Amino acid sequence: MAVEKRPHLGDATRGRILYGGDYNPEQWPEETWPEDVRLMRAAGVNSVTLGVFSWAKLEPRPGERDFGWLDRLMDLMHDNGIGVVLATPTSSPPPWMGHLHPDTLPVTEDGRTEYWGGRQHFSHSSATYRRYAAAITEDLAARYGGHPALTMWHINNEYCTYDWSDEAAARFRTWLQDRYGSLDALNSAWGTAFWSQGYGDWAEVHTPRNAHYMKNPSQVLDFKRFTSDMLLECYLAERDIVRLATPHTPVTSNFMPLWVGQDAWRWAEEEDVVSVDLYPDPRDPLGAQQGALVQDMTRSQARGPWMLMEQAAGPVNWRGVNHPKPHGLNRLWSLQAVARGADAVCYFQWRQSRQGAEKFHSGMVSHAGEEGRTYQEIKRLGAELAAISGQVTGRHTAHDVAVLHDWHAWWAGAQDGRLSNQVDYPDVLKAWHRALWEAHLTTDFAHPEHDLTAYKVVVVPQLYALTDAAIDNLLAYVRQGGTLVSGFLTGVADEDDRVRPGGMDTRLRELFGIRTLHEWWPLDAGEYADCDTFRGTLWSEEIDKTEDAAAEASYKGGELDGLPAVLRRGRAWYLSTLPEPGALRELLAGIATGAGARPVLDGLPDQVEAVRRGDLLFLLHHGREPVTVPVPGTHHDLLTGTAVTDRLTLDRYGVAVLRT
Amino acid sequence: MAVEKRPHLGDATRGRILYGGDYNPEQWPEETWPEDVRLMRAAGVNSVTLGVFSWAKLEPRPGERDFGWLDRLMDLMHDNGIGVVLATPTSSPPPWMGHLHPDTLPVTEDGRTEYWGGRQHFSHSSATYRRYAAAITEDLAARYGGHPALTMWHINNEYCTYDWSDEAAARFRTWLQDRYGSLDALNSAWGTAFWSQGYGDWAEVHTPRNAHYMKNPSQVLDFKRFTSDMLLECYLAERDIVRLATPHTPVTSNFMPLWVGQDAWRWAEEEDVVSVDLYPDPRDPLGAQQGALVQDMTRSQARGPWMLMEQAAGPVNWRGVNHPKPHGLNRLWSLQAVARGADAVCYFQWRQSRQGAEKFHSGMVSHAGEEGRTYQEIKRLGAELAAISGQVTGRHTAHDVAVLHDWHAWWAGAQDGRLSNQVDYPDVLKAWHRALWEAHLTTDFAHPEHDLTAYKVVVVPQLYALTDAAIDNLLAYVRQGGTLVSGFLTGVADEDDRVRPGGMDTRLRELFGIRTLHEWWPLDAGEYADCDTFRGTLWSEEIDKTEDAAAEASYKGGELDGLPAVLRRGRAWYLSTLPEPGALRELLAGIATGAGARPVLDGLPDQVEAVRRGDLLFLLHHGREPVTVPVPGTHHDLLTGTAVTDRLTLDRYGVAVLRT
Amino acid sequence: MAVEKRPHLGDATRGRILYGGDYNPEQWPEETWPEDVRLMRAAGVNSVTLGVFSWAKLEPRPGERDFGWLDRLMDLMHDNGIGVVLATPTSSPPPWMGHLHPDTLPVTEDGRTEYWGGRQHFSHSSATYRRYAAAITEDLAARYGGHPALTMWHINNEYCTYDWSDEAAARFRTWLQDRYGSLDALNSAWGTAFWSQGYGDWAEVHTPRNAHYMKNPSQVLDFKRFTSDMLLECYLAERDIVRLATPHTPVTSNFMPLWVGQDAWRWAEEEDVVSVDLYPDPRDPLGAQQGALVQDMTRSQARGPWMLMEQAAGPVNWRGVNHPKPHGLNRLWSLQAVARGADAVCYFQWRQSRQGAEKFHSGMVSHAGEEGRTYQEIKRLGAELAAISGQVTGRHTAHDVAVLHDWHAWWAGAQDGRLSNQVDYPDVLKAWHRALWEAHLTTDFAHPEHDLTAYKVVVVPQLYALTDAAIDNLLAYVRQGGTLVSGFLTGVADEDDRVRPGGMDTRLRELFGIRTLHEWWPLDAGEYADCDTFRGTLWSEEIDKTEDAAAEASYKGGELDGLPAVLRRGRAWYLSTLPEPGALRELLAGIATGAGARPVLDGLPDQVEAVRRGDLLFLLHHGREPVTVPVPGTHHDLLTGTAVTDRLTLDRYGVAVLRT
Repeated sequence: MAVEKRPHLGDATRGRILYGGDYNPEQWPEETWPEDVRLMRAAGVNSVTLGVFSWAKLEPRPGERDFGWLDRLMDLMHDNGIGVVLATPTSSPPPWMGHLHPDTLPVTEDGRTEYWGGRQHFSHSSATYRRYAAAITEDLAARYGGHPALTMWHINNEYCTYDWSDEAAARFRTWLQDRYGSLDALNSAWGTAFWSQGYGDWAEVHTPRNAHYMKNPSQVLDFKRFTSDMLLECYLAERDIVRLATPHTPVTSNFMPLWVGQDAWRWAEEEDVVSVDLYPDPRDPLGAQQGALVQDMTRSQARGPWMLMEQAAGPVNWRGVNHPKPHGLNRLWSLQAVARGADAVCYFQWRQSRQGAEKFHSGMVSHAGEEGRTYQEIKRLGAELAAISGQVTGRHTAHDVAVLHDWHAWWAGAQDGRLSNQVDYPDVLKAWHRALWEAHLTTDFAHPEHDLTAYKVVVVPQLYALTDAAIDNLLAYVRQGGTLVSGFLTGVADEDDRVRPGGMDTRLRELFGIRTLHEWWPLDAGEYADCDTFRGTLWSEEIDKTEDAAAEASYKGGELDGLPAVLRRGRAWYLSTLPEPGALRELLAGIATGAGARPVLDGLPDQVEAVRRGDLLFLLHHGREPVTVPVPGTHHDLLTGTAVTDRLTLDRYGVAVLRT
Repeated sequence: MAVEKRPHLGDATRGRILYGGDYNPEQWPEETWPEDVRLMRAAGVNSVTLGVFSWAKLEPRPGERDFGWLDRLMDLMHDNGIGVVLATPTSSPPPWMGHLHPDTLPVTEDGRTEYWGGRQHFSHSSATYRRYAAAITEDLAARYGGHPALTMWHINNEYCTYDWSDEAAARFRTWLQDRYGSLDALNSAWGTAFWSQGYGDWAEVHTPRNAHYMKNPSQVLDFKRFTSDMLLECYLAERDIVRLATPHTPVTSNFMPLWVGQDAWRWAEEEDVVSVDLYPDPRDPLGAQQGALVQDMTRSQARGPWMLMEQAAGPVNWRGVNHPKPHGLNRLWSLQAVARGADAVCYFQWRQSRQGAEKFHSGMVSHAGEEGRTYQEIKRLGAELAAISGQVTGRHTAHDVAVLHDWHAWWAGAQDGRLSNQVDYPDVLKAWHRALWEAHLTTDFAHPEHDLTAYKVVVVPQLYALTDAAIDNLLAYVRQGGTLVSGFLTGVADEDDRVRPGGMDTRLRELFGIRTLHEWWPLDAGEYADCDTFRGTLWSEEIDKTEDAAAEASYKGGELDGLPAVLRRGRAWYLSTLPEPGALRELLAGIATGAGARPVLDGLPDQVEAVRRGDLLFLLHHGREPVTVPVPGTHHDLLTGTAVTDRLTLDRYGVAVLRT
Repeated sequence: MAVEKRPHLGDATRGRILYGGDYNPEQWPEETWPEDVRLMRAAGVNSVTLGVFSWAKLEPRPGERDFGWLDRLMDLMHDNGIGVVLATPTSSPPPWMGHLHPDTLPVTEDGRTEYWGGRQHFSHSSATYRRYAAAITEDLAARYGGHPALTMWHINNEYCTYDWSDEAAARFRTWLQDRYGSLDALNSAWGTAFWSQGYGDWAEVHTPRNAHYMKNPSQVLDFKRFTSDMLLECYLAERDIVRLATPHTPVTSNFMPLWVGQDAWRWAEEEDVVSVDLYPDPRDPLGAQQGALVQDMTRSQARGPWMLMEQAAGPVNWRGVNHPKPHGLNRLWSLQAVARGADAVCYFQWRQSRQGAEKFHSGMVSHAGEEGRTYQEIKRLGAELAAISGQVTGRHTAHDVAVLHDWHAWWAGAQDGRLSNQVDYPDVLKAWHRALWEAHLTTDFAHPEHDLTAYKVVVVPQLYALTDAAIDNLLAYVRQGGTLVSGFLTGVADEDDRVRPGGMDTRLRELFGIRTLHEWWPLDAGEYADCDTFRGTLWSEEIDKTEDAAAEASYKGGELDGLPAVLRRGRAWYLSTLPEPGALRELLAGIATGAGARPVLDGLPDQVEAVRRGDLLFLLHHGREPVTVPVPGTHHDLLTGTAVTDRLTLDRYGVAVLRT
């Protein structure tokens, strides 16, 4: 829970946008370090993250410590005015750990051990692992807590492991006992009366392992919750250790955006700084929108400035085909993050590895070195960030539109025995965010139980499972004047994944004017549901509406001919299909206008994104042909230092940061 | 073997088509039960299947019994005139069983245990499992054998598990000893001289587990036979228990149609009632034909009326995209089953689950409840079934055409190292049945060793492996005047999967006029073999014919130019390719006409299926546009109660049941 | 290392092309043997390979021996003038071995045991397996070393198993200790400083088993090297046994062409006869070129005549769809092998199996038997081979062009975290060989450290990792006047998979005129990089060239507009993309012409391959329509016995063997 005096990102930035990245100098001979520092300084790098993968180096044998090299690095950084985000190295245990303690290794769903030789081969439930992790964290905190280079703690890295082992099963049982109190309650929540799954003894309850046919979806759902909670326990244990040692130094752990495994709403509450790793595909025509989505979500989790912990200066190496960033794209996307609230623009990693699994993942200094285009662009961006830092850091801007998102609803909906495997939660979320983004409506994200009253429009792309509290919240929001737009498959189940009577919560059906929801009609891949004014995708529904509801759009032809596709009852809208992108954009833009929510700027050309942060207006051009943007009035462009009146031209991947 | 006085389906129907479904009321609070009964009665439901998944409820801890809830249900059903098909719950053991007795869990080919948490996690070979299964069956038989609601026993459910465990291996060895007597015989049957697989000791013989390269196909074939036999042993053990207690109550276990694992010819001999689960995809343009095929096969296994144990009132939930049934389709397909011999039209399940893995599988009462379209259509159908029951039940009709089918041939042919993985046995079977179905020739199915003399035409879509007895049977059939039409890959191997000299049995080659079968020429996906009058698919062959054979069609162009594609010697036809659907239909229709087999009705429009059962003519319209059907003479339509003279019009999905 | 007096293929051929194949008569009753011999003699078969899969027959129980049947076969062969290539049966251990000694079974990456029931289920690292293998080899050598039928030893068969077991891990550690001497050296070579993989104790080092994320690529690379070396150890152990017994009898083990697992350059040094198995798909339009590639590679490994150990007379049975060979194709491809250096044309197998996993793999005698087209063509070919034998055997011809190939470079490049999974080493190799083949430039293959001075042109399709010695070799080759043409992704890493500074070795960059290699731009599947005169595929690069280099082709449009696609500095050419086939052919043909390398014959029609061997010119027509080939002068065609002047016509799949 939030504590008033908790440290925050501002304690690390101190008015400067953090710029830098993961620095793993143990890969290189020490002779390289001064050269690194020279290049960092030339590029305006003011922050590095040390120690993410250093456990074997710090603890070469159980209980041994080797801090000398890190001492030298911390001093070197400090001597050169570069702050250090110091990581606990607990995401990648040394080989000796798995060798001496096989109980620290995760086990997959079908019983295969995950060995060392990669990374993240730790069982979140292993008492042995946790003991070693606490010990190294304590020693790091004791040794570097007072070091002047230290600006932030980074706990672990991209928490993401699942574990079906026996020790995890034992912890799962404890977690379930805490959640349900009794076996009866568990049997009820999991619906074990079906398929003869009634448990008579806690000892019978297992992690959801390899089964002959579909597993119990509530068990699987709870296992996802348990996994997020176990990882959070690991985080909290280490956070508490460093917090005790350095109460005024902020703590973070980097999220993987839209990764399925962590309930980031819950996690963010326990972080002083919300940080995220962001890797849109440079080839993806919607890469910029994916970035905006993650940035909006992260800003909403942070409720203020946030940290872009990792991005790539060039290609990554984990896609099938890994494309580099064309000239200018890294700058554009970095400034987009700043526009959407980032006070830290960092990379994985400083210098591209020359060995190991990620040597084809780019670095700020690529294999091509100082002369390479990548570093040259990094250098230019460093200067620009320094130029705008003072007018950016710490600023947070409120928005009129919120998108509701909840990991538990995602987890619950993504079950094996669902009606359509074509419906992918992140895709649906992206489709709705895209519509708003293309309509130049900057959006926050919110949890369905959050206070929504500040928003003029709230959209629910898809929340398959909703608690009663969340439903109450949505009803209250509309009652109090809010405009709610919901997609299909919302409110179908309760938090135990129990289908609500009628296939959708009765109160929500009333809200939207649905009398009877006869059948869901999922669409095949590539199939469309024709409506009067657009084509629907993914889904359609056979609905009888109530008298007081209006069919704003209807199905045309086929089995659902004449039935409502878009239903409206007062300020509550229901979409029983996913309109194609243009249609969804127009629909949401119209609803927003009706609710008094306005786009950032009128008359924006396609491909130009506009975002306000504090007093600044960021204009980001995602296209390759020059465009002219109408910006009524006179402004000052912080990047060029020139005045802009009424209109400005943006070249390929151009950015302007205007102050009026 | 058939016993004269064995009970049969008529003992359960007593002149009324059974209508109802699986009823799992333990999922719901008891308050729901009276509401269930009200809706059942309103819909004409007269039969429910209880207890399929109730083991954990009946035996919450090892040896404990809780029958109270079932007592109340049995009484409730009886009080409301609803018969009960009582299931043994042995398809889904309670969690305690796997937990206390890991030896009851199946093990996959690559050594992974199948845990509880789904269903069907029992090893057919486990002595422990069988002991518990027998005990609960005995107690059920003792308690409910005399209950007046009881109409039938349902053993287990959809038997289908494989098991490669050590205990299964031990049983496999015993089974092999029974089959072969000596290791020498096994070595000969499996051809172990190849690849150095000669066994010197029975203990060396294993279930065919994960191997470096292709496994011994005869070993795999025997493992499939063994699996079917082990599952049958499980069935027989439970059947014998209930039969002892209630000698006059029929016993069944539901088949999965065209599922690869059970030799249903053999199984059907041990069932009083042959029942089947049938789930064509409502979106499949050939769904009705798939249904007809299963119905024809099931009727042939039953040698009389049969039970449609499970179908879906709406969507299922195990396909990728699960489509609901459009208005009228459930009625159409249910009446199709009656036309083709069903005396029971049942569903999985009565009320759609609200929890668990199958909550998106439809029920007779959907999530939408009483007002939902699904239940409303169920209610209408119940009334119609009641209206025709008296003139339908017990009637069995003979047909002129038989399709040969044998699981052993399928198993043998579906081996890894075959010439083409494009040749899929069920697809070939469907293609031939489709041709006959579209030609309005109602067909039976038969085993290749059955007496075929009653048929005018026998077709063999593909029987890769044939016993000598089967070959003798086919030869005798033709000798005695029958017309035989065979597809390629027939008679290639003997029952041990030993290729017969010449690549096809010599007597069959003689029968069809094949002098030399030089090479098989399988076709790639999407490739065609051009012939004079049609295009062949899947396969072609390089054949020299004998003098006395006629090439009824020849390949045109390519490597096989001029060689026979369709070969005929007297009444024996051989197709060395699979003609495209229309061509196969014309070919078979012509051969049938020549042999004196006539379609059900002349001049039928496309999409209208006609079937005779007893004195009735069923007309089933599978299209969506109204059609007019010529029906010379005057008839009485049992569904409308009106007279029909010379022609009648069927609307979308329309059905008429005519009596002349 | 090569020993002067080592026996060689000529000791087995004695002037006759070996013709025959694997003979597994233990599959058949002994009555079949005389019939086999009759058909062999009629077909000119003079060599059979016995015993490949006979271990269970020879050693039915541990330590027992049954040689009687083999004695009779050896005698029978000898009596009929058929030489025997006698195999050690160690590729397929008897069932008793895995049963009694589970430690002899391989274990997969994710811990699954590979059971008996297939073949090749032996762990190369198992001491038990090696002990048994040595014992049976010793006894075979003792018994048959002096048999007059014996012409060659064949050790094992298609060595190819991996093993991640504990015993393999122990051996891997020893292998690594030999390679690196110290853990420090291993840690350096594997770059374990990254991802906290530093090893503190040898016991911690494992085979690269199932991991959470990407494995250490150097560890995986070394595991591939280790696997090749362990298999080689197995080979050497058996070879040394037979060599000791029969120092003048040549020894071989058959390679699988372009199979990833064996470093065949290293292996070939230890073989008296290099033999290969070759199975191009008869349907593959490039089948003939694939064959030529393998033949060229095998000849280069043999540095002289080589043995085609296995090919198929008709279809194989391990593809998805297995096509037979059309009339004439087996002859054409067999004579192609002879043209490219084969002194032995053999098949798997003599008589097609009637049981087991390979009964649909063709034989020289197919299921159709003596009358079948397959045997009839075999017979014709036997006569032709006999006719040309005397002027062919022992001849070896030098060529002007070499293609560099190295398994270690392949292994290193095929890592998980690479930039593009579209780049497949064998495909790139094939593309370059195809260009040369279509340009009628017969090529050798060479290792990058081989002496290249004899070649006018050396091409490097792709050698991702190169040792310093190899780089020195390439530089020296160009310095001494050679023309070098290299594709992209060459010289990127050293032998430990350490990326060289600048992303490509500095000396190579200098050689080709690359100043800065900014970024690799891999292309998506189906994407092209437009260049001035052709389209590039797979890859492109952002390069700054040096002043003294010439851009022979440049990218046009897109992000790389105007940058060099084909770079030339003197005699060193660099292709940063893969031109489409026609363009690569023209480019290489032009370069070859410039370097004085000429095609075999001018004016050859498409589809006609010309190869010189000794004094003979082979003309091979791969098309189905007759063509006329200009052959200036007068020649004698050994196959027809006729004179040819200035031109000759080849019919479908026609071959001429001309002597001038």
